[in-house]
Amino acid sequence: MIIVMRQGAPDEEIQGVVATIEELGYRAHLSKGEERTIIGVIGDERPLAVQPLEMLAGVERVVPILQPFKLASRDFRPQNTVFSLNGVTVGGDQLVIMAGPCAVESREQLLEIAAAVKEAGATVLRGGAFKPRTSPYSFQGLGVRGLELLAEAREKTGLLIVTEVISPTDVALVGEYADILQIGARNMQNFSLLQEAGRSGHPVLLKRGMMSTLQELLMSAEYILANSNYRVILCERGIRTFETATRNTLDINAIPVLKKLTHLPVIVDPSHATGKWEYVGAVSKAAVAAGADGLIVEVHTHPEKAFSDGAQSLKPGVFNQLVADVRRVAEAVGRTL
Amino acid sequence: MIIVMRQGAPDEEIQGVVATIEELGYRAHLSKGEERTIIGVIGDERPLAVQPLEMLAGVERVVPILQPFKLASRDFRPQNTVFSLNGVTVGGDQLVIMAGPCAVESREQLLEIAAAVKEAGATVLRGGAFKPRTSPYSFQGLGVRGLELLAEAREKTGLLIVTEVISPTDVALVGEYADILQIGARNMQNFSLLQEAGRSGHPVLLKRGMMSTLQELLMSAEYILANSNYRVILCERGIRTFETATRNTLDINAIPVLKKLTHLPVIVDPSHATGKWEYVGAVSKAAVAAGADGLIVEVHTHPEKAFSDGAQSLKPGVFNQLVADVRRVAEAVGRTL
Amino acid sequence: MIIVMRQGAPDEEIQGVVATIEELGYRAHLSKGEERTIIGVIGDERPLAVQPLEMLAGVERVVPILQPFKLASRDFRPQNTVFSLNGVTVGGDQLVIMAGPCAVESREQLLEIAAAVKEAGATVLRGGAFKPRTSPYSFQGLGVRGLELLAEAREKTGLLIVTEVISPTDVALVGEYADILQIGARNMQNFSLLQEAGRSGHPVLLKRGMMSTLQELLMSAEYILANSNYRVILCERGIRTFETATRNTLDINAIPVLKKLTHLPVIVDPSHATGKWEYVGAVSKAAVAAGADGLIVEVHTHPEKAFSDGAQSLKPGVFNQLVADVRRVAEAVGRTL
Amino acid sequence: MIIVMRQGAPDEEIQGVVATIEELGYRAHLSKGEERTIIGVIGDERPLAVQPLEMLAGVERVVPILQPFKLASRDFRPQNTVFSLNGVTVGGDQLVIMAGPCAVESREQLLEIAAAVKEAGATVLRGGAFKPRTSPYSFQGLGVRGLELLAEAREKTGLLIVTEVISPTDVALVGEYADILQIGARNMQNFSLLQEAGRSGHPVLLKRGMMSTLQELLMSAEYILANSNYRVILCERGIRTFETATRNTLDINAIPVLKKLTHLPVIVDPSHATGKWEYVGAVSKAAVAAGADGLIVEVHTHPEKAFSDGAQSLKPGVFNQLVADVRRVAEAVGRTL
Repeated sequence: MIIVMRQGAPDEEIQGVVATIEELGYRAHLSKGEERTIIGVIGDERPLAVQPLEMLAGVERVVPILQPFKLASRDFRPQNTVFSLNGVTVGGDQLVIMAGPCAVESREQLLEIAAAVKEAGATVLRGGAFKPRTSPYSFQGLGVRGLELLAEAREKTGLLIVTEVISPTDVALVGEYADILQIGARNMQNFSLLQEAGRSGHPVLLKRGMMSTLQELLMSAEYILANSNYRVILCERGIRTFETATRNTLDINAIPVLKKLTHLPVIVDPSHATGKWEYVGAVSKAAVAAGADGLIVEVHTHPEKAFSDGAQSLKPGVFNQLVADVRRVAEAVGRTL
Repeated sequence: MIIVMRQGAPDEEIQGVVATIEELGYRAHLSKGEERTIIGVIGDERPLAVQPLEMLAGVERVVPILQPFKLASRDFRPQNTVFSLNGVTVGGDQLVIMAGPCAVESREQLLEIAAAVKEAGATVLRGGAFKPRTSPYSFQGLGVRGLELLAEAREKTGLLIVTEVISPTDVALVGEYADILQIGARNMQNFSLLQEAGRSGHPVLLKRGMMSTLQELLMSAEYILANSNYRVILCERGIRTFETATRNTLDINAIPVLKKLTHLPVIVDPSHATGKWEYVGAVSKAAVAAGADGLIVEVHTHPEKAFSDGAQSLKPGVFNQLVADVRRVAEAVGRTL
Repeated sequence: MIIVMRQGAPDEEIQGVVATIEELGYRAHLSKGEERTIIGVIGDERPLAVQPLEMLAGVERVVPILQPFKLASRDFRPQNTVFSLNGVTVGGDQLVIMAGPCAVESREQLLEIAAAVKEAGATVLRGGAFKPRTSPYSFQGLGVRGLELLAEAREKTGLLIVTEVISPTDVALVGEYADILQIGARNMQNFSLLQEAGRSGHPVLLKRGMMSTLQELLMSAEYILANSNYRVILCERGIRTFETATRNTLDINAIPVLKKLTHLPVIVDPSHATGKWEYVGAVSKAAVAAGADGLIVEVHTHPEKAFSDGAQSLKPGVFNQLVADVRRVAEAVGRTL
Repeated sequence: MIIVMRQGAPDEEIQGVVATIEELGYRAHLSKGEERTIIGVIGDERPLAVQPLEMLAGVERVVPILQPFKLASRDFRPQNTVFSLNGVTVGGDQLVIMAGPCAVESREQLLEIAAAVKEAGATVLRGGAFKPRTSPYSFQGLGVRGLELLAEAREKTGLLIVTEVISPTDVALVGEYADILQIGARNMQNFSLLQEAGRSGHPVLLKRGMMSTLQELLMSAEYILANSNYRVILCERGIRTFETATRNTLDINAIPVLKKLTHLPVIVDPSHATGKWEYVGAVSKAAVAAGADGLIVEVHTHPEKAFSDGAQSLKPGVFNQLVADVRRVAEAVGRTL
């Protein structure tokens, strides 16, 4: 951590800052420039983040040097995190394809879609039983009945199940049915939920908030890792910007940046990132070309009748084509599918 | 709702859309332009929001006409919502000033600050017992002990208490101690929490998410109103933009926009909106000049030792001055304080 | 265009709007819903964009139906625009690779880099002679001397030249040396410059402003097309968002969106889009996978000594690898390089 | 400037960076922390901004310590810049009110509006003769004829004239007629124009770009100041964000931030900042309460017939009320009008 003093800060203010740093158990390192004095703080600066050092007399600015996350960083664990779930490997050379409806709507709908995505090459079935909806008047999900249907679909197809949990009190329940707990973009900083998901020991798919920085995403992952739960998959799903031609803006840069900063696997949700089914194929190929470890795609057999997100859902035939296209791109970048 | 057909959409596609609209219980109204046919949907369009009409053959775009919220709108209730809590009126001519520390840290700290803000003119004491923190390594709040201290401060000063609730399971508990439940920016779309706060019947201070549009803020308020709980205070606390000179960007436009769209009272949090104590005074005056119904300000007797948000907390003397300054501006716009 | 009337707007206001529309030479089409009356305007709405119809009594909102650009749209020209420059085809199956230094710094520097990018497979040499710089104290380019060096590099290597023009008065001059005029992001809405570049008849590389929507980019292209200059190449180079881990956020969605809306070729600048050389490879592959028609990449033989943008410039060896990697992705999506 | 080395950077890399710094004429100051070595650069770091020090072996990150602008900073000139133009003082206790139509449309229109704003209390008349328009099909301004009309309005009313210049070649021409040259938001980084306006010696009203940081605004001002032209007025006119309820988001924080960083006067454009006339009053009062030195407001006698920006223009009666309201707020914060 670097503390920049105001121009012309008198000696007693500089000494005051040094004294405070030393009281807190750190060493201070002074460097007098032509216009400003700066003070380096020697020691693990992370616990210092809570100290309002900007408030000390004479301080102009505090500049952190280290990333605030630790367990999620490549400094801590240089190799990629790779783990297997029932024969599906996440984070390895082979991409993981998750697909399915936005919401579980009925037994018939789910089983039909599950069979279709399985045939196209997906290995994980997505589908929401508890739905976070902007409007109180929208369909809120089938709840437990939805979880039971997901379990039935797993039995019938062998697909793994990923489904969202929206409340800390539901973590145990959802964990009974799901192979991977999804924490949605709107809950990325729901810290009670992160804690509970961390404690549960279940693998977690953590989606980036639509206006969260990558550093914040990694801090949220840190909540789960700090509970000794290392099976975390990060998901870039588009951020909110001024552009209105698409629902969100897929931050494709996020893939190489995350790959540099963290050892955790990174997948992409091209459906929410665009909001329109016709753009899903192009950005899916882009995500894999940029180094993503997988995709999570919304597929529906009758999108025109979907209870939610119909406009961004692919019909099975289109999804089939997408998987074939993505496979060629995957091979071009040395991955398999 | 308006449905815009693609250029050159054939008659059978147009008829298909009309048929679907009629099946759903609406009337369709055709208008053939030179380049596009548009179809007006006659009837309450809000339930239609869940229908992916964009997926019907030939549809280019769907344009909603009505705001998606109802109970929160001025269409529904033209007069301002005004309510009293133990002698403090919210939404009336008199501004409400809420102030206090970011977090409850100790008995001594809280009682000292409570006495100071009371003397300066505040009528509501703020202070977090449960803290949502970006980092798992930061201070997470005193929990129940913090609530007890808040209750003690109320007894001693007569101030009302507003404090944050971060989990639906804590609503009942926090409701036992607080006069107003605060739902923080990161939880604005934590729908389980909104439902529970709505059902509790307690007054709710709902902060705008840093990534949320005003329409989304009003949809979140709708979750509470839909539970017959009409004592909702909206709070603009800054949004996230590209500007890095301040922690957030106070959306001052939001005040007249909200005043036009909704009957609910609107207050401003200048502390989070700027992130630096030295800017808090200027934007507090701006907020009141723009028509805000009150302020919620972070005050600390020893900001340089605060466990969180020290850099944006005012010392009591500065807060005292702020209240005096704001009072003059309030009078200039026909309000009192 | 659709005009939405306020709730309860009286008949005389509705008739007033209808009368105005008819005076302006359009037909009006009334549709009375349960809560609002809407009025459809029949006729080419584009000239109406300048009319403040929102100001007419009783009007709540005006909703445009058509895109405001015409010549740039696929409605106007369904097939892709493809054109050849000295044997280099832009917009066809083969990708165009533009590469070179940010700025022309010296004869030696430019010729060395030109030879290197030619060998790696580029067909167009980039390099700025006139530099728009945020700071008045930064290197502002070699000016005419830089143009002469670019011409010499073309003679020596056979590469085409693309270079930026920053003032309408320089268009003729730069056009004498360059094969393609570049209009930079900061000048995307410098309308005098767009007009002049349009009139010049030279091919134009138009970069998206960092703050501009895709609709605005296409409106700026329209300025050039409206001067009967159809050789326009659009360039996505990253937009400004709240994320600070990269210099800009590459809007990868923009590629399929532009491909849907316009017939013009679209290339990507991965160097400005990321700001760090280590991320350039990943997003170059992504851009091509998403359907871009080419890339423009900053390459420098001694980036640690570059006068500008050194941190985002590739060394020739890395660029060589990038071209090889991109070629494989191009083939995977049915393109060549 | 601080250079942060990568974790575990070997001694020869650290020595390499030190050697480079010393070659460039600076002193280096080493500080070895537990996880990283940091190197302080002693000397005026501004010229170093052009050096890609990030590219040196072993460097993780470069952190500037000083603001990159100098002449515009309070460090350079602690007192407020105040100047008088024909009896109108800018930057002093008295606020300056600029008002008028978006564009000069006709003699009758301009003279009528000029008389109205004069009567309401404005001292400067705004009105565009050269209009930067997003669409090539929109009204582009009356050009020289518009300038002549502005001069006539000045003669008739005694109001000063502020009008936009959009091309460096027009600076001399516009300077013949205008008292203050306006550089618009889209041209904030049109550096040729900034240079030319700087050289002209005319007072300049510099509007913030809609997606420019405050630091960039001050760098653009620096272009003018570096030409020894110190009569620069900054104008906050709203930035582009994700919120769509208003045309732009007025960054009210910008006022105290600019007041801290720079000695230049700061005014606010509430018309572009909101885009809707009904919100202009509220944010005008807010701007003055926050410490703005003036306002520039769009006024039109027949906004429903305006050639541009009709929806955000006030009718004279409403403007009259606004001036009265703003006067009360000004007095409440110790200013006059």
